[in-house]
Amino acid sequence: MPVNLVAPVAADLHPIAGVRIGVAEAGVRKAHRKDLTVFLLDEGASVAGVFTQNRFCAAPVQISREHLSSGQPIRAMVINTGNANAGTGADGLARARATCIALARQLSVAPEQILPFSTGVIMEPLPNDRIEAGLPTAIADAQPGHWARAAEGIMTTDTLPKAFSAQVQIGGATVSITGISKGAGMIRPNMATMLGFLATDACVAPAVMQQLARDLADGSFNRVTIDGDTSTNDSFVVVATNKAAHAPVTSLDSADGQALKAAMLSVSQKLAQAIVRDGEGATKFITVRVEGGKTGDECRKVAYAIAHSPLVKTAFFASDPNLGRILAAVGYAGIDDLDQTGIDLYLDDVHVALQGGRNPAYREEDGQRVMKQSEITVRVLLGRGTAADTVWTCDFSHEYVTINADYRS
Amino acid sequence: MPVNLVAPVAADLHPIAGVRIGVAEAGVRKAHRKDLTVFLLDEGASVAGVFTQNRFCAAPVQISREHLSSGQPIRAMVINTGNANAGTGADGLARARATCIALARQLSVAPEQILPFSTGVIMEPLPNDRIEAGLPTAIADAQPGHWARAAEGIMTTDTLPKAFSAQVQIGGATVSITGISKGAGMIRPNMATMLGFLATDACVAPAVMQQLARDLADGSFNRVTIDGDTSTNDSFVVVATNKAAHAPVTSLDSADGQALKAAMLSVSQKLAQAIVRDGEGATKFITVRVEGGKTGDECRKVAYAIAHSPLVKTAFFASDPNLGRILAAVGYAGIDDLDQTGIDLYLDDVHVALQGGRNPAYREEDGQRVMKQSEITVRVLLGRGTAADTVWTCDFSHEYVTINADYRS
Repeated sequence: MPVNLVAPVAADLHPIAGVRIGVAEAGVRKAHRKDLTVFLLDEGASVAGVFTQNRFCAAPVQISREHLSSGQPIRAMVINTGNANAGTGADGLARARATCIALARQLSVAPEQILPFSTGVIMEPLPNDRIEAGLPTAIADAQPGHWARAAEGIMTTDTLPKAFSAQVQIGGATVSITGISKGAGMIRPNMATMLGFLATDACVAPAVMQQLARDLADGSFNRVTIDGDTSTNDSFVVVATNKAAHAPVTSLDSADGQALKAAMLSVSQKLAQAIVRDGEGATKFITVRVEGGKTGDECRKVAYAIAHSPLVKTAFFASDPNLGRILAAVGYAGIDDLDQTGIDLYLDDVHVALQGGRNPAYREEDGQRVMKQSEITVRVLLGRGTAADTVWTCDFSHEYVTINADYRS
Repeated sequence: MPVNLVAPVAADLHPIAGVRIGVAEAGVRKAHRKDLTVFLLDEGASVAGVFTQNRFCAAPVQISREHLSSGQPIRAMVINTGNANAGTGADGLARARATCIALARQLSVAPEQILPFSTGVIMEPLPNDRIEAGLPTAIADAQPGHWARAAEGIMTTDTLPKAFSAQVQIGGATVSITGISKGAGMIRPNMATMLGFLATDACVAPAVMQQLARDLADGSFNRVTIDGDTSTNDSFVVVATNKAAHAPVTSLDSADGQALKAAMLSVSQKLAQAIVRDGEGATKFITVRVEGGKTGDECRKVAYAIAHSPLVKTAFFASDPNLGRILAAVGYAGIDDLDQTGIDLYLDDVHVALQGGRNPAYREEDGQRVMKQSEITVRVLLGRGTAADTVWTCDFSHEYVTINADYRS
């Protein structure tokens, strides 16, 4: 049961001028599943991507990076589920290239203008013949209004499709932003992938696209964690089709740049948080906010130590205000000169720990009340400075073990 | 159910000349439990300790560190279960000091000659009055042959006491080594502590004691992981009573030094591995061996990435040879210039991955066969150098979630 997440309503998702989306059933791993999605981009779109830092990154990640750096304008993306094409060596690279060549031929563009993405089982050969056979159907299906369909097309064991949309005024024009994502952590049958695709019809100078993609990822997908594992295939791609009637954004620090980035970040965060809300076995959505650090980096370390701790996460599952576990995680987060007597801890509005010890005014029933909620904010004050950072995560339940211990079927 | 671990037989544990051990029921948290243990050391013993790196370390850890560095010879250790005296601020320090003062008075030594240890619930005041009231009984109980009794006395939710013993020839004399430990990870009712106490009657120059303790901890307790959490109270103490009839070991690199250290390391490893075998919900004992690294440090990083991954650990629980999860953990372990095409993976004798991809000769049923065993060795060859390292861990089961999600009772 996802935590406070509902399926998107197709009519609420703004089409993005210059983007058409088609979906097909290619039978990659199972029949009768929407497992192949293509994004077709009009000429003139700017594209940037951020990819997994995992050194065991999948073949499509390697090729997407290569194609993005080739300098050729990207004209299409192709996403398959059912097979991650990871841990597949040189053969995997060849199969991913073959898919790009096949799609490029049908679109009359160069293979370097295609970005491939795969998610599903790993260490098994990509059935690129079946993917290529499905491409004509996917291309024929392509429509600007197919965002909700795409959100379904990239699902693996997500229990709900994930799509969000927004509009914002930029330079006197109304621009639209729409995105989709899938998760959830690393999942059965093998491990899956966090994928995010975000498009806008805003005009963005190519020179700032990579920074925009990185900033958006840092503020959203890089701030969520399910189980601390990093997939081989994680990818986040940002597209600006440059169709809107306004002067191009040439700096993210300009008023227009800030407004656009804020609106895109808001959609990105919803997409990233949706992955946590639909995390494997999640029953609670936890915001971990760390303030009073010397640097944002040390705040992030502390936030991740809390968000990754199986002990903290099982305590949330149990609605048990077992708060020593949170303090212990703060203690081992890696701040060498941390003074425990400077630390305060809140659960929502409840002041639990004061100067490193139990707050004398804290009553267990108050902690218990907050822990029973489906949305909880953990707030840690380090008392060392003015930096802050936030991470989102979920609890750790029996269902997580059941899902991940289930034999691949 | 611990994995291939049985309770120690008291008669198999060699007494250590110069060490007497007494146990009492002090009613720290619950009545009728052996919850107070004292180690009484004859004059002339050398003592060194290694403690948690957690910045939220407990009051007794702070005081033990202080007393060890005071230069005064240590004459006793006092260990209580039921309360960790962690997250308790200045009041916690005062209560731990009061315990030391009380024991010191009864032994006619200085408070700085006492090392205190606590394990149990955190953020609750230590009932030092009850501990102090129990000290005379514990002292009266003290006998050299009470090692098995002490192993019971320091248990919290361990399902079995843990004690091992060995003898070795040093400089023509037979010296004995006996130790006890408790775990298991961080456990209910709140979090518990990894404690290890190792004593020998061998003669060891005080100058090499700290290095000896550090080397032993590095090769044993610092090579095991249950859930990646680091307790506030973890402590490992080494005692040499200097009673044996041989010339003192003044260098760990001498023949005697090497022989003694090897024998002590063997006992330390059994004590540390016993904690994993009795890990919360453990059904399998996993050895993660990483070879072919440029440095031991990078091998250890990779080994811990594998050993900490909830996905890898649930796959072991399920006996599922879901080996992509292991490769993914290798990939995100933090070796920036790792070349995935150089990596081989074995499960025991089964060659699973070859040069970063699935070994063509690998058959799933072979992986399945190994995964069903209760003891499994994961072997990763990085193909970058000649360094190696090993970590021991257990799987991740429903029982882990049940234990840790259980409300503190």
